[in-house]
Amino acid sequence: MIYPIEMRRHSAAHVMAAAVQRLFPEAKFGVGPVVEHGFYYDIDIGRAITPEDTEAIDREMRRIIIENPAFVREEVSLDDAIRLFAQMGQTYKVELLNDLKTKGTTRVSVEESQDVDPQNVGSVSLYKTGVFVDLCRGPHVTETKEIGAWRLVKVAGAYWRGKDTNPQMQRIYGWCFATAEELERHAQMMVEAEKRDHRKLGKDLHLFTIIDEIGPGLPLFYPKGAVLRRNVEGFITELQERRGYEPIWIPHITKGKLYEISGHLEKYDAMYPPMELKDEASYYLKPMNCPHFMMLYKSVPHSYRELPVRYVCTTTNYRYEKSGELTGLTRVRSLTQDDCHVFVMPSQIEEEIGLMLDMVAEVYEAFQFKDFWVRISTHDPANASKYIGDPQVWESSELILTRLIEGRGWLNEIGIGEAAFYGPKLDFMAKDVIGRPWQLSTIQLDMNLPERFGLEYADAEGGKKRPVVIHRALLGSTERFLGILIEHFAGAFPLWIAPVQVAILPVADRHVEQAMRLAEEFRTAGLRVAVDGSGESVGKKIRAAEMQKYPVMLVLGDQEIASSKLNVRRRGEKEQKIMQKTEVLVELSEEVKQRK
Amino acid sequence: MIYPIEMRRHSAAHVMAAAVQRLFPEAKFGVGPVVEHGFYYDIDIGRAITPEDTEAIDREMRRIIIENPAFVREEVSLDDAIRLFAQMGQTYKVELLNDLKTKGTTRVSVEESQDVDPQNVGSVSLYKTGVFVDLCRGPHVTETKEIGAWRLVKVAGAYWRGKDTNPQMQRIYGWCFATAEELERHAQMMVEAEKRDHRKLGKDLHLFTIIDEIGPGLPLFYPKGAVLRRNVEGFITELQERRGYEPIWIPHITKGKLYEISGHLEKYDAMYPPMELKDEASYYLKPMNCPHFMMLYKSVPHSYRELPVRYVCTTTNYRYEKSGELTGLTRVRSLTQDDCHVFVMPSQIEEEIGLMLDMVAEVYEAFQFKDFWVRISTHDPANASKYIGDPQVWESSELILTRLIEGRGWLNEIGIGEAAFYGPKLDFMAKDVIGRPWQLSTIQLDMNLPERFGLEYADAEGGKKRPVVIHRALLGSTERFLGILIEHFAGAFPLWIAPVQVAILPVADRHVEQAMRLAEEFRTAGLRVAVDGSGESVGKKIRAAEMQKYPVMLVLGDQEIASSKLNVRRRGEKEQKIMQKTEVLVELSEEVKQRK
Repeated sequence: MIYPIEMRRHSAAHVMAAAVQRLFPEAKFGVGPVVEHGFYYDIDIGRAITPEDTEAIDREMRRIIIENPAFVREEVSLDDAIRLFAQMGQTYKVELLNDLKTKGTTRVSVEESQDVDPQNVGSVSLYKTGVFVDLCRGPHVTETKEIGAWRLVKVAGAYWRGKDTNPQMQRIYGWCFATAEELERHAQMMVEAEKRDHRKLGKDLHLFTIIDEIGPGLPLFYPKGAVLRRNVEGFITELQERRGYEPIWIPHITKGKLYEISGHLEKYDAMYPPMELKDEASYYLKPMNCPHFMMLYKSVPHSYRELPVRYVCTTTNYRYEKSGELTGLTRVRSLTQDDCHVFVMPSQIEEEIGLMLDMVAEVYEAFQFKDFWVRISTHDPANASKYIGDPQVWESSELILTRLIEGRGWLNEIGIGEAAFYGPKLDFMAKDVIGRPWQLSTIQLDMNLPERFGLEYADAEGGKKRPVVIHRALLGSTERFLGILIEHFAGAFPLWIAPVQVAILPVADRHVEQAMRLAEEFRTAGLRVAVDGSGESVGKKIRAAEMQKYPVMLVLGDQEIASSKLNVRRRGEKEQKIMQKTEVLVELSEEVKQRK
Repeated sequence: MIYPIEMRRHSAAHVMAAAVQRLFPEAKFGVGPVVEHGFYYDIDIGRAITPEDTEAIDREMRRIIIENPAFVREEVSLDDAIRLFAQMGQTYKVELLNDLKTKGTTRVSVEESQDVDPQNVGSVSLYKTGVFVDLCRGPHVTETKEIGAWRLVKVAGAYWRGKDTNPQMQRIYGWCFATAEELERHAQMMVEAEKRDHRKLGKDLHLFTIIDEIGPGLPLFYPKGAVLRRNVEGFITELQERRGYEPIWIPHITKGKLYEISGHLEKYDAMYPPMELKDEASYYLKPMNCPHFMMLYKSVPHSYRELPVRYVCTTTNYRYEKSGELTGLTRVRSLTQDDCHVFVMPSQIEEEIGLMLDMVAEVYEAFQFKDFWVRISTHDPANASKYIGDPQVWESSELILTRLIEGRGWLNEIGIGEAAFYGPKLDFMAKDVIGRPWQLSTIQLDMNLPERFGLEYADAEGGKKRPVVIHRALLGSTERFLGILIEHFAGAFPLWIAPVQVAILPVADRHVEQAMRLAEEFRTAGLRVAVDGSGESVGKKIRAAEMQKYPVMLVLGDQEIASSKLNVRRRGEKEQKIMQKTEVLVELSEEVKQRK
């Protein structure tokens, strides 16, 4: 039978709990939800779970699966359930059920939502797997053997309900897939992902660092990382301006007044606290750019002849994310956005979105994201009062979005009712080389901010009209995108964005001067060059350049100087080539132009 | 006789006060200091001073000068002085003298410092000019006729001692120079300066704006201003990297810890107040970059072979300047610095400073600052204990600075004892086209921060040594430099930095498409182009392009399209030229390359 993957994963969690119960009859169970790639269960056996325990649990799970008990659902009243779990000594479950009884919910965090059906508070459902009984809204696979392929992967401490004043439990994680092939593919991907970890590569390749005295989530970039940033941002800038987008510049702070107008002060919770002044209103660090863009548009009158007005700015925003959630570059507090706001007449939406889709396609091709798909978030016609703006603009623009995406033959899914209250949206998901999906670009229509800021343009008759705003980011944020890129390329960046494109390795100290001159010639040709003047042996220099994953190495010794030819090693190729200098320059420049 | 200009200016202030006293015997006098280009006097005649009053005062001053009374100094006791001014009804002077008596100073603000000699509190000096007596420490010119050339220029309200709860007085401003030629030159410069006011041009040329809801001193840049910024910053970036400087990237905020280490938290008073968090230490917006640079250097070990380490970063700092002191772009709260820190061994100071002087020269040539001079601030050997760091490094580096500046034949002045406690410094002053001097580049040696941050490098023997840091900014700040540049060029930017280099003006709507294609060709050749598609007459389009001070205009009509030639108008030239397209492209590209 074809089960949704979540059913398999949740069933695996029950089997794991059943196995634990057999091995540790006193075990108390917390919650056991489905997560990405698998499941976990929070369990309290009164001590830490050892690797030997995990092996035993694994064996016991296999035994249960051979026994193949069915998953049996039973509906009981809330009070009966409380009595049953209290008898079994399952105090955590009793706590959840009591919460359900008194507060109508068991939720402390979203993860727990699988355990009890909040729609049905008078009674609850139990699932039995052999003698193991769990509080659970289901559904499950029919028989245990139908779960699929699973593997226990990790045990970590976790506080009951996430609160550090609660008892610490043991969280056992597992992966679960429909087939053994899928599990194996995932396992390999995880091995591959670990090798590509951008935090490790960021250090090894001297790209960035995070410094205690400055703060978590606030990476600083070494020269190679700063050049990589610039290459990526510069590509986006060029791409945009080639299509008539115009750069602006905005400061990183503002009076709170701006966010009163935009409504962010009231609703946006990731803002840093204000800088409070005695003789002036408080200032805020900007967590997003939209309000600044709106004010700049508003500061001069606009005519329909000038529309669309396309403003772009690559600028850093600051969001106070919880320190526990920060990861390398992919989750930071300083986010540099390639932000764009286009002010259009409704009749221009189609052409503008088309232009944006062209750019999305060009970006993904340039960075070698071959697989991507689009999520189209539309309004829910059954709930029309929820949305602001002209219903006609809603309908026509959703039609446009869908038609444009379909027209390009791009995979897509439509999320009806998933639009924000102020406009429909496109989210682009791209897979990296090891198959992990990342949310990258966003295109969002907005009929709210133009209203709040009172934006206008003069139409052909001189009347005042309200423009629609289209928000757009191609990369999302430079930092996060770099984190993804580092893992995508495992640090072996293509020539065109590599911070160092050519490493010149003088064989001995007497060749250093010649190497410097050669470097100068390459620089003049527009290439980024490093000379290794370290005084190490050439063998060590080659090894170091390989570790740095430089695309091209030129070893320069007596022979090369005498012959006026270059000894060229390309990354990943075993063969060295002897080439004329001009040949090398032409070849490399051509590759850069082709974004190879 | 050759008098210092301050003596002439202060004497003029007395003569003005004497004239006011003759015309308004009840007038009460506040303070009358020397200011840049002249003097002012705060006077209370019980009402506003009209233009007619000013004319009368001017005439009366000329009469006094013909009478030519001498300036006569008289020393009296503090009590006698108080009695004298009280008899004359000069209540403001009495207040000053009473302050002197009770607090030992009359100072509320720096401007008042000229009136009484704080060294000599037991007695004060009076100066008499005819019957007019003023409390004044002098000195003055001997006779009134020796003052030189002066002109009354402006009257403005001013609160007594700058406090808005005090009575409002009338502040009469005058210019004063040694000769009529100098006065005339200054007057012309002021007329010229007003025409060039960057705040007005910034609006007219759509460069930048300041928005109430965002805040004073926080300019936002329209596309043309943003491109101008980028052109100027990009030039500096290219200039630096060509010489082996390496870019880094740093966040705009930090934990306070960083400024505890650097000492800024204790001593630097232009910082924005902290963003105070409940569950973490407070964060600060950075007012300068040095501490971030220091930490990045410190985050990896360095060997003498890698030195000098030359880090650069163009990044925005925020300083809470008083709102009353903010002016357009030249005095802002958001300062984007072209900041550079070089970490050197003492033996490398000479070469590094030489490299920096090369860059200073290239920058001033590129931006057509023909006149500049250098202030060399050195330590005071008589006060050696005031300075930290190796005395030998002090002496040798001051010698190096002086020798390098002298060697280039650059005008300089040496300020003995004007160095900061942590190192000698070079300040570069450049004159704009109308002769106003601006402080631009700075080069500062620093032996303090390396110590505070515990910076090190491994020397040839593997021992730990402390590097010297050289701070350097070429432009000072992008914002201020742009303000200066706008006035320097009166908005008529040279081709190579002009945000729009070529304006294409289609004669009629039917030529717009062709104009767009032509623009595309120019863009491909690397030029910045705007097409005027406004639908106005070609005469109006030409006028608008002239107002925008675009360097090149191409009028495109039937004739040009038929002949495949271009009608070229250069800014400031009356003649139009008929040229081949390729000719135009080559000519303009060549000029850009030569930074014309």
